Amino acid sequence: MRQLSFLLVAAFLTASAAYADEGMWTFDNPPTQRIAQKYGVNITPEWLDTVRLATVRLSNCTASFVSPNGLILTNFHCSWACLGDHSTKDKSLMTDGFLADTREKEIRCEQQIADVLVSYENITAKVAAATKGLDDKDANDVRKKTLTQLEQACEKASSKDRKTGPLKCESVNLYNGGQYWIYKYKRYDDVRLVFAPEFGIAQFGGDPDNFQFPRWCLDMSVLRAYDSSGKPAVTPHFMKIDFKGPAENDPVFVSGQPGSTDRLLTVAQLKTLRDEDLPRALLRRSELRGRYIQFGKQSEQNDRIIEVPLVSIENSLKVQRKELDALHNDQLIVSKAREEIDIRKLVNSTPDLAATIGDPWQDIERAEALGSAISLPYTYLEAGAGFDSKLFRSARTILRGSVELPKESDKRLREYRETALPRIEQGLAASTPVYPELEQLTLSMSLERMREWLGPDDPTVRQLLGKESPDQLAKRLIAGSKLADPKVRMELWKGGAKAVDAANDPMIEVARLVDERARALRKNYEDNVEAVTRVASEKVAKARFATLGTSVYPDATFTLRLSYGSVQGWIENGRKVEPFTQLASVFERATGQPPFQVPASWMKVKDQLDMTTKFDLATNNDIIGGNSGSPLINAKGQIVGLVFDGNIHSISGSYWFDEKMNRTVAVHPAIIQEALAKVYGAKNLLAELQ
Amino acid sequence: MRQLSFLLVAAFLTASAAYADEGMWTFDNPPTQRIAQKYGVNITPEWLDTVRLATVRLSNCTASFVSPNGLILTNFHCSWACLGDHSTKDKSLMTDGFLADTREKEIRCEQQIADVLVSYENITAKVAAATKGLDDKDANDVRKKTLTQLEQACEKASSKDRKTGPLKCESVNLYNGGQYWIYKYKRYDDVRLVFAPEFGIAQFGGDPDNFQFPRWCLDMSVLRAYDSSGKPAVTPHFMKIDFKGPAENDPVFVSGQPGSTDRLLTVAQLKTLRDEDLPRALLRRSELRGRYIQFGKQSEQNDRIIEVPLVSIENSLKVQRKELDALHNDQLIVSKAREEIDIRKLVNSTPDLAATIGDPWQDIERAEALGSAISLPYTYLEAGAGFDSKLFRSARTILRGSVELPKESDKRLREYRETALPRIEQGLAASTPVYPELEQLTLSMSLERMREWLGPDDPTVRQLLGKESPDQLAKRLIAGSKLADPKVRMELWKGGAKAVDAANDPMIEVARLVDERARALRKNYEDNVEAVTRVASEKVAKARFATLGTSVYPDATFTLRLSYGSVQGWIENGRKVEPFTQLASVFERATGQPPFQVPASWMKVKDQLDMTTKFDLATNNDIIGGNSGSPLINAKGQIVGLVFDGNIHSISGSYWFDEKMNRTVAVHPAIIQEALAKVYGAKNLLAELQ
Repeated sequence: MRQLSFLLVAAFLTASAAYADEGMWTFDNPPTQRIAQKYGVNITPEWLDTVRLATVRLSNCTASFVSPNGLILTNFHCSWACLGDHSTKDKSLMTDGFLADTREKEIRCEQQIADVLVSYENITAKVAAATKGLDDKDANDVRKKTLTQLEQACEKASSKDRKTGPLKCESVNLYNGGQYWIYKYKRYDDVRLVFAPEFGIAQFGGDPDNFQFPRWCLDMSVLRAYDSSGKPAVTPHFMKIDFKGPAENDPVFVSGQPGSTDRLLTVAQLKTLRDEDLPRALLRRSELRGRYIQFGKQSEQNDRIIEVPLVSIENSLKVQRKELDALHNDQLIVSKAREEIDIRKLVNSTPDLAATIGDPWQDIERAEALGSAISLPYTYLEAGAGFDSKLFRSARTILRGSVELPKESDKRLREYRETALPRIEQGLAASTPVYPELEQLTLSMSLERMREWLGPDDPTVRQLLGKESPDQLAKRLIAGSKLADPKVRMELWKGGAKAVDAANDPMIEVARLVDERARALRKNYEDNVEAVTRVASEKVAKARFATLGTSVYPDATFTLRLSYGSVQGWIENGRKVEPFTQLASVFERATGQPPFQVPASWMKVKDQLDMTTKFDLATNNDIIGGNSGSPLINAKGQIVGLVFDGNIHSISGSYWFDEKMNRTVAVHPAIIQEALAKVYGAKNLLAELQ
Repeated sequence: MRQLSFLLVAAFLTASAAYADEGMWTFDNPPTQRIAQKYGVNITPEWLDTVRLATVRLSNCTASFVSPNGLILTNFHCSWACLGDHSTKDKSLMTDGFLADTREKEIRCEQQIADVLVSYENITAKVAAATKGLDDKDANDVRKKTLTQLEQACEKASSKDRKTGPLKCESVNLYNGGQYWIYKYKRYDDVRLVFAPEFGIAQFGGDPDNFQFPRWCLDMSVLRAYDSSGKPAVTPHFMKIDFKGPAENDPVFVSGQPGSTDRLLTVAQLKTLRDEDLPRALLRRSELRGRYIQFGKQSEQNDRIIEVPLVSIENSLKVQRKELDALHNDQLIVSKAREEIDIRKLVNSTPDLAATIGDPWQDIERAEALGSAISLPYTYLEAGAGFDSKLFRSARTILRGSVELPKESDKRLREYRETALPRIEQGLAASTPVYPELEQLTLSMSLERMREWLGPDDPTVRQLLGKESPDQLAKRLIAGSKLADPKVRMELWKGGAKAVDAANDPMIEVARLVDERARALRKNYEDNVEAVTRVASEKVAKARFATLGTSVYPDATFTLRLSYGSVQGWIENGRKVEPFTQLASVFERATGQPPFQVPASWMKVKDQLDMTTKFDLATNNDIIGGNSGSPLINAKGQIVGLVFDGNIHSISGSYWFDEKMNRTVAVHPAIIQEALAKVYGAKNLLAELQ
């Protein structure tokens, strides 16, 4: 079965074919013909514009405007950070939920933003011109500089443009380097929490039911965007909710920001994921999960402290272990290898292509080998696996900021480019809690694992640990650092190198101690792995365009995409899984113990609830992590669901789309209405939604 | 490089070749010619007899007699259980070490045994005759019955044999079914602890240095076998220690019980290990490690409670993750696949072979698929992953014993055959500590993971958990069970079904609740996976004999083997690793913090120690887990080292032997002498050893 979808892709090579409802399509290249043919729906430019302008990109998720006054609908789990930031050891918004019955009570999510994609521009030719004739390494440097310059020029221009007002401009790399674009966003950086239900119903079934269906989760939260003057944003482009929802087989669309897929990776790259990256990440996460759980059992306060980190890590664990399963399916690797052989043959049989493209697959394989050789120190020292600590992350940001900011924007490490600074400062200034107990847990574990994987004789490990154990070092750094205070962080950030040197903060000093080697590892990686891979991937992309045409979609990049499909279940072990669930089953499934415990608010009004209310639903849209919070949209452009998950088979969607099994899972609008009206008495909110 | 050793095996197919020092050879088929050719050492039958009769099989390790009075030399880590059993929350023998300066002070290791291989008998023909003409499933049942009957007859005969006295008779399956043997052991079930150093020096470097070399571990303990009258055993066959040790390149031999290798597995079987078994086991162990560590940080008592379980799990984790790395080395799978193709070709080109052997590789592939389909419930319900608890293991043993013992010995589940009962009873009667806190940790975690992997809708999960959380269920079972008391265990074991029913012990009732399904899963596994695989593996073995001759050795089976080689280092990243380490480096490497903390006993006498004393050494012998505690023997039959580990490359020895990199690591006899004399003042012990 799995092979089928792959044969379809291979079939592009020779002939037209019946298409699966596959693809995360850019708004400049939507598959309107296929949609019209298969579903009789005419996707007009107006429909696309409305959907685009009503779709919101959060820092971590998708969302949508659902009123003209900046009201935003997204998932509960997209607001974990906000709920955690407003919780204390003694009171948890995650557990209890939140409702602002008036606008004054809406609370700011200090780390959150809301972006709307206003326009976009193809800059492929500009990037190509800038890097023409350069070797891989120089091209890599110049490419980054060019992107930084184009972004900055775009923001500057927009700030003078009365029609648009200031925009955030971000370069986007599609088809692994096949195309470059500038995406221009209107950004709201004052986003407030309006409503979240209790964790118990938002994520009923918890980790055991995560990525499962049938499912009963009210995985929603409501936010509101505010403008720079502190008033609710004016958002004339919004979508109405159709509370009765769709019928089985109705065509439905998902608009949103799928985060990342690896469908265009070469076999060599997939093998690195299978053999190194995923197993190592799983080992680390699995141990961390064990530590969190045991830590949480020590007291109710501890249990609250690890609420957000634990659900978050359990989610990643499940994703990564199913990704590993997918890569262990030899059919996947074999199909990919076969596709590679076919494309290479086509390239070689066309002299023009053969001359310009060469053998980028082999270049990538060589770069992967170089990457593997430095992967462990790179992961622990530069990518942060050795310093899992909020304080350390602040320390490194402040330290590197003090070195980078004096340089011109396009000469800095790219994450410190001028246009990126507002987000960094928002993070440093946010008064989010730092729990020393939790810092101790994560930092000491990551130091211990660094010693395990790099070995006690690694020079940095020796220098760091000296005569201390990982526990002792972590304790000393955490106790001595003042970076938990946002004021201190901002003073050091603004104060530059002099202030940073004078601070003598032990966490910053550790960041300094590893910085030379960490930067060298990064340089090595960028010059010898990234640079080669980038050029080779562009060639692979060209080969794909040349052989497959443009009827393909790029890998997900956390930028706006449209996916199409219909409401449907699937066949699991010979039995049909129905596409809708009902409220009644929640109470049947409840055991009285978390994560199968129905909150008291629901138990209290149980008798008044309509037990036939639809709860969650399944569709065959092609989505991936990052689409959380996406609106499920009908042909009329109304919201008929709130996407929050995929079924277990959807996780292999990282590498291919299995049309028979891969399903999107969404909250049904009917349960949103039922809950807001009868459980939460959220009259004002409901009125605004209707 | 890795491919080389495999080419050598493949070379057997066509011509003679230069042999690597590879193989764990049975004593009936030692490669004496190769040894004579390469090392000029003449291995005589007398040499073999002495070595065999002086080599001891412990329950978990290898050891050797080193005096005529039952004195046994083995590793520190082979005595973990004994040290743990004699520790309490407040005092740890693991940490502090132990020395009995007189025989009266030697303390019994209640779970330990010492077996000596007295003789062995080839029963391949008998087993073949019994199963002739039967289908796979019936053959599997009859084979087990036959082995049970032969073992029982052998023990009965020995009990009447005045010359040998009563022996333990165990069937052994070599070459994955290619041969069956009965191995006959003299057993000592009264084994006492004489000496163990502190953990800090026995396992200096702890987990970070585990499987590394250079190394500085005094990984030794000394035991003594007692006879049934409570007197030190008379052991005229023992080996003397040559305290000055061997020189570089000296020929050396390892005699011992390598536990398990998978070098004869087919590619299909290796893929199951790579894709399912190892990743799943690693995830479970990694989380458990995290839980143990966090639990240990809560108090000093907790830290002591998890000492033994933690070192044990960290050891398994490192082994399994390097095994997974080995299987991710595509060269390994590719070489194995190539070898399979070659043998299959040879079989097919010989009509006789083709007719009798057919295609067992495909049979195994099919059986693997059936095994995969039931692997999760089998692992959690029958193999115990869902009930990680000492109390549960006792409960299941008692429950199943009450059902099985009334049957005839050869009709029981094979582990309850008459000849196996003494070991079961030794375990049930042992007064080893059960810590409820630790039981709570392991049982609640395993129940939680069972719910995760089988799903909350699995019927057994539903039945078990009902309205309780995994934590609550574990707590209730542990609090309510009386099975921590060895007297209660023995009463129920002896009392049979009636006593067991009357006990109403909640842990036994849970064991009963899952027993029907667990047994059904086992039956399914035995009939459809094991039965098919056994027959197919025999055919593969026959094909190997037919094509490779008998110049091959069987996979390790925790039975007596001889490996040959020489003292040597290796080349790591272009630099030579010297084969010896010296005492001085311990003090240089010490940080003052565990696991790099030198015990106080050593610091006190530091000035009196000879810093040039050799500490550990490396050889190229082919060994694997189970060889721990093995004597390293010179041509004269003297002990010149105490094997305790391999280098990191040796772990891939599960699947193939890499002569360039795979090394055995042993304690040097000189440091044993230096430590006993100057650090521990163990005069009597040293006198007995000299």
